[in-house]
Amino acid sequence: MRESEVIERLRRIATAPEARGLLDDVAVLDGYVVTHDSIAEGVHFLPQDPPASVGWKLVAVNLSDLAAKGAKPAGALLSLTISGPAEWALDFLGGIEAACESYGLPLLGGDTIGLPPAAPRVLGMTVIGRAAGEVPHRAGGKAGDSLWLVGTVGDAAAGLALLEQDPNATGVLVDIYRRPVPQLGAGAALAPHVDAMMDVSDGLLLDARRLAEASGCGATIELDLLPLSSAYVAERGQDLSARLFAAAGGDDYALLAALPREFDLETLSLPRGTRISRIGSLSGAGPALSLTFAGEPVELPERLGFEHQSNSDRGLSAAPMADRP
Amino acid sequence: MRESEVIERLRRIATAPEARGLLDDVAVLDGYVVTHDSIAEGVHFLPQDPPASVGWKLVAVNLSDLAAKGAKPAGALLSLTISGPAEWALDFLGGIEAACESYGLPLLGGDTIGLPPAAPRVLGMTVIGRAAGEVPHRAGGKAGDSLWLVGTVGDAAAGLALLEQDPNATGVLVDIYRRPVPQLGAGAALAPHVDAMMDVSDGLLLDARRLAEASGCGATIELDLLPLSSAYVAERGQDLSARLFAAAGGDDYALLAALPREFDLETLSLPRGTRISRIGSLSGAGPALSLTFAGEPVELPERLGFEHQSNSDRGLSAAPMADRP
Repeated sequence: MRESEVIERLRRIATAPEARGLLDDVAVLDGYVVTHDSIAEGVHFLPQDPPASVGWKLVAVNLSDLAAKGAKPAGALLSLTISGPAEWALDFLGGIEAACESYGLPLLGGDTIGLPPAAPRVLGMTVIGRAAGEVPHRAGGKAGDSLWLVGTVGDAAAGLALLEQDPNATGVLVDIYRRPVPQLGAGAALAPHVDAMMDVSDGLLLDARRLAEASGCGATIELDLLPLSSAYVAERGQDLSARLFAAAGGDDYALLAALPREFDLETLSLPRGTRISRIGSLSGAGPALSLTFAGEPVELPERLGFEHQSNSDRGLSAAPMADRP
Repeated sequence: MRESEVIERLRRIATAPEARGLLDDVAVLDGYVVTHDSIAEGVHFLPQDPPASVGWKLVAVNLSDLAAKGAKPAGALLSLTISGPAEWALDFLGGIEAACESYGLPLLGGDTIGLPPAAPRVLGMTVIGRAAGEVPHRAGGKAGDSLWLVGTVGDAAAGLALLEQDPNATGVLVDIYRRPVPQLGAGAALAPHVDAMMDVSDGLLLDARRLAEASGCGATIELDLLPLSSAYVAERGQDLSARLFAAAGGDDYALLAALPREFDLETLSLPRGTRISRIGSLSGAGPALSLTFAGEPVELPERLGFEHQSNSDRGLSAAPMADRP
């Protein structure tokens, strides 16, 4: 497999400025933010996952990309493949409908195709959003910026781990894994002020390194400051190992924002209940990613998140959501 | 399988006016025309098809939808699944690049995911176009309109039939099957004047019936007037049976336009070499579709084109391009 060559090739084709070098999860065309995510059965969702939750998640992961750009949902196109009983597709559409209603996203069209028997389902969605002004780039971070996280990390990864032990597991963490919440309101409030912003889908450590590298900076994450939910702490604790698991977990759909250090968050009108936490900073020198815990440096774990890799060496749990080109 | 229920369900979700009732292959959002088509290995293309031609075709079938709306290509998002050797994906991207270059379509982004081993590839593309004014609908046809066809019909179906006999077949018809040409220039020239327009992708008879039904009219096609290429005539002749095969063949990516009877085509500046033929008319009464040959009525063939149907009863040759929701 030479998938890095495939990505390289894509970058050589996508040279228009609107493509943002394929670095930014979204394209920006005139005043519109456009993104597409696909998910495959057996890779991004489990065959036994409730189909409605798969539909919900497909909408939410796309909206999370809009959230990170401060854009307002304008419309979606669905790519629906039908394989096996039609009930699955009907239930899946129930989840699509619920998420579209929840977030005011009109479904505008798409394509429905049948697959050969027993083929794993591949489901895709294109979402178009209206930008509210300048669209934040992940590459805009500056040395001295503080790094802020909207939401929590680790819940989805902990939920997936529970499902791997017991496919019938239930509870808050499983719910969060299956029904992520895009941070549209917080993203819109932050967008005019950030130097850089992206959503955390592949793991905070991996995504923070990407933001830092794209910005030509080094990121330091203070693991003590990681926002963990009480459900997460009840399940996994909050020691260094629990924090590293959360930071590399992925599927969080939190927002990572780089803001000038002096920026006063009190001036923002964030949606009620928004959890926003300073988790580190950007510097002009040093490695792309460094970690500290209780003031001491911590070695990087071997795995920072879900890297784009060949499916031959990728287990299901290793890729809830693959890297985007 | 209850796929009609799936389509019904989609229609109930997609109620925004921009969705055009899911009748029109495209959505129209502000001044933009947006469309998505997906193709699956073993359904819409053959595993042994040259990957570059699959890439070309994915771009061309999406651009054909823009052509039918008179829109100008603005950008594309690609949904790329990787399965098997990366060489396939690299060659596929070569075809994507060539078609994007040919038609001035910037690739802006998308998503790349790995599939489980041996899963058939599913490839999708969203294309966004800029509308040049009012966007023609397929539902706008009026009693008394003449039906015009841009391009020819039957070539791709004849090419596919050759490939089914011999996977190594070559020649003009095979080339047309693999590398359809979207009629962007003609579509843009016609769009301000048509009452209705759509591209012919599932078979002329089926698509003409759809246009007539959506418009509340009856369509009559005069099979004598069907434009056939010399390559088609050399391979299959031009008798009634050859004309019915061409008219139900599909994968043509011709344009079907309803124009006021008195409209003078000489006033248009169509691209040099555009083949445009009057093939019938719309009436206010009668069945949705009637055929004539040499002035005599002809019974409708059992199959009008490639209906959306369950893959369990669909052979490969029965679905080069499925119906869209």
